[in-house]
Amino acid sequence: MSAKPSSRDRVEDALKRISDPAGEGSRSCLSVYADAARQAADEADARAKAGKSLGPMDGVVVTIKDLFDVKGEVTRAGSKVLASRGKPATSDAAIVTRLREAGAIIVAKTNMTEFAYSGLGANPHFGTPGNPADRKRAPGGSSSGAAVAVADGIGEIAIGTDTGGSTRIPAALCGIVGFKPTVKRVPRTGAFPLSYTFDSIGPIARNVAACELADAVMAGENTAPQSPIALNEVRVGLVQGYLLEGMDDIVGTAFPKAVEKLQSKWKSAEELTLAPLDIMHEVNHRGGIAPPEAYSVHRDLLKDAGEGVDPNVRLRLLRSENVNATDYIQNLRDRERAVAAMDALFDKFDVLAMPTTPIVAPTLDEIATVETFNSKNMRMLRNTSIWNFFDVCGISLPIKLGNQLPVGLMLIGRHGNDRNLLRIAKSVEQALAG
Amino acid sequence: MSAKPSSRDRVEDALKRISDPAGEGSRSCLSVYADAARQAADEADARAKAGKSLGPMDGVVVTIKDLFDVKGEVTRAGSKVLASRGKPATSDAAIVTRLREAGAIIVAKTNMTEFAYSGLGANPHFGTPGNPADRKRAPGGSSSGAAVAVADGIGEIAIGTDTGGSTRIPAALCGIVGFKPTVKRVPRTGAFPLSYTFDSIGPIARNVAACELADAVMAGENTAPQSPIALNEVRVGLVQGYLLEGMDDIVGTAFPKAVEKLQSKWKSAEELTLAPLDIMHEVNHRGGIAPPEAYSVHRDLLKDAGEGVDPNVRLRLLRSENVNATDYIQNLRDRERAVAAMDALFDKFDVLAMPTTPIVAPTLDEIATVETFNSKNMRMLRNTSIWNFFDVCGISLPIKLGNQLPVGLMLIGRHGNDRNLLRIAKSVEQALAG
Repeated sequence: MSAKPSSRDRVEDALKRISDPAGEGSRSCLSVYADAARQAADEADARAKAGKSLGPMDGVVVTIKDLFDVKGEVTRAGSKVLASRGKPATSDAAIVTRLREAGAIIVAKTNMTEFAYSGLGANPHFGTPGNPADRKRAPGGSSSGAAVAVADGIGEIAIGTDTGGSTRIPAALCGIVGFKPTVKRVPRTGAFPLSYTFDSIGPIARNVAACELADAVMAGENTAPQSPIALNEVRVGLVQGYLLEGMDDIVGTAFPKAVEKLQSKWKSAEELTLAPLDIMHEVNHRGGIAPPEAYSVHRDLLKDAGEGVDPNVRLRLLRSENVNATDYIQNLRDRERAVAAMDALFDKFDVLAMPTTPIVAPTLDEIATVETFNSKNMRMLRNTSIWNFFDVCGISLPIKLGNQLPVGLMLIGRHGNDRNLLRIAKSVEQALAG
Repeated sequence: MSAKPSSRDRVEDALKRISDPAGEGSRSCLSVYADAARQAADEADARAKAGKSLGPMDGVVVTIKDLFDVKGEVTRAGSKVLASRGKPATSDAAIVTRLREAGAIIVAKTNMTEFAYSGLGANPHFGTPGNPADRKRAPGGSSSGAAVAVADGIGEIAIGTDTGGSTRIPAALCGIVGFKPTVKRVPRTGAFPLSYTFDSIGPIARNVAACELADAVMAGENTAPQSPIALNEVRVGLVQGYLLEGMDDIVGTAFPKAVEKLQSKWKSAEELTLAPLDIMHEVNHRGGIAPPEAYSVHRDLLKDAGEGVDPNVRLRLLRSENVNATDYIQNLRDRERAVAAMDALFDKFDVLAMPTTPIVAPTLDEIATVETFNSKNMRMLRNTSIWNFFDVCGISLPIKLGNQLPVGLMLIGRHGNDRNLLRIAKSVEQALAG
């Protein structure tokens, strides 16, 4: 049995994987902080030797999504146009500061869908990182490079963002864990926006414990790891209705098997339909909330340099050019009502369960045209984006089923009950693995 | 010297004034709580006799604007259409509860501009309460009945709301004091909305001390009266530029005299122009913030029953039918920037001073057509509405100048520094009276 590798060894391992021309490193990592990471690792190792620690993430090797500010660098958000027009950030993003203060070593900035505005993870400017289960398939997005880096052993934790599923989808498609906190939990200062209302910042990692660690640090809570909540204390709601429709063969087999495996372990399991979805559909019919916000963020750039933007992203943005302000304002108010109605459901349930995505990762060929891309993208975002609307927390856990493509089980927790959801997720993770 | 009149005596006095056919009571007060007020007064008198007190407003006779929920009543907001379409409120507005818990006796609900959407105070459905200085003139609005009631001795304090000047303007035009707090200070639950972003709840009274008392109670702070801050400790900014343009003869004489009277008393007095106004003008050019919010509140009502709405209000609302959501979203973001820029100015100044309105109360004849109404209304709201945009606090104090029509001096304080502004206002009030 060997000793735990040093921070320097783990950083060197990550750097080697990033630069391996046979791997996805050049597509999953867009900026590499080799010298700074080596120095930080040596400092962490020296502290460890001296019995000292900077914080709960001392020596943990992490990556951050390409949309977080790092002082002195232009924040690119997966966009060459933004890279050419932006100004260098004058300070680190709030979560970058918190991660560094807790001892984390930032080794790279990871690739993403341009502006974080799709769920498939394709990026025509910097190349699409291949899915670790099948390199010809999409990684899921928008935090594509984050999930591929973690799955490929580049760093232990990747920090992503989730506006409609962007941590949960790539985690599901790459067979790892992705957490989306309640929006208010993690400060967004210095994170390039997509939607002022829906953006949340969460980790992707190989297990729930690592997500819990990074989440606590980013939320400013340097607390100890939590014990799992035993499943026989947990009341689960099994979501029915259209969230179970349109599953492909792999998800349609894996998800019911996972539910069956857990079935006898819960305190109670009850099927339910989500009445507050009706309000969400009305809101989306009136132009929604995130789409006009995203268009607002990028309007000037689209006018000046729209031809330099990924056409899939540009066309999606442009669809919100003419939303009416009154509709948007009413949407915000109706959402408040819907959030309250959904919150009340959690009087009866500790978590809700459903498939993270109804389909596995598509091949890059399957999303090669604007039409097929759009259709797969909408399908991919369907189950996750609901929960950004309802302002709750969620996590995607891998369902392991032989050599099949990865499938995600999504657990949804009550608004603000993030820590509780993570405790339950630890037990579900164990039960799925057993 | 007589003893302080009992609560019952003061309630009876208010009721007598309300029902006096020679007075404005029927136009300033739309609902009268005679029985409940008498009972509450008797209870307050019994407590006083027993040496007990319910709270800092025990036995104070107040009125509330027609837009606050009272359990079991339809909230009308000065509108007959709303009165006929609404459902009875299921609980009291948050400030109603706080006032009652502090011992206040609510004697009536006061008239207002329909939906609170103009600064002149005219109401074609319930009659326009005549200005106490000249009954042929407008009272100012939207809290018209609130100011007229206080000026006419109906209650000691009137609770109004201020979205663009609606406590400060009628106070200025009626020769009394009107306070507008920072929005976040007083909870708005159960107050019928005009603008989700700008609505604030504040008192109108005959002096600053009474405003301070009601404000503290409504903010949930049952604190003792504060001492004034001496003017020789106060750095004043004398606002220049277009806020001093277009003053009529009375304001143009009274305001400079008031400034001159105070001139030697300040710690420092410096003229300044407000650079962040440029951002506000851009925002307003793009459709603004309050107008599309107000249209959103009333869209359905206007479609179903628009012909029953005051044409001046209806036409103003309809102007925001087609604001673009992206513009509105950008307006909210630009406003954040503007608020920060204005806030920084208060590093150098404790208060800013300017005329509350550039003109005195117009005659009702002068605002009889849609065109003249609109022109006077825009003029009336000009100086006050700026400060709702910048999310600060403000107060209008009467400038007394012989038998002239009333003129207001407006003091503006920093965001969240409401209590400090009231302490300074106490000294200015004294100095103006001296």
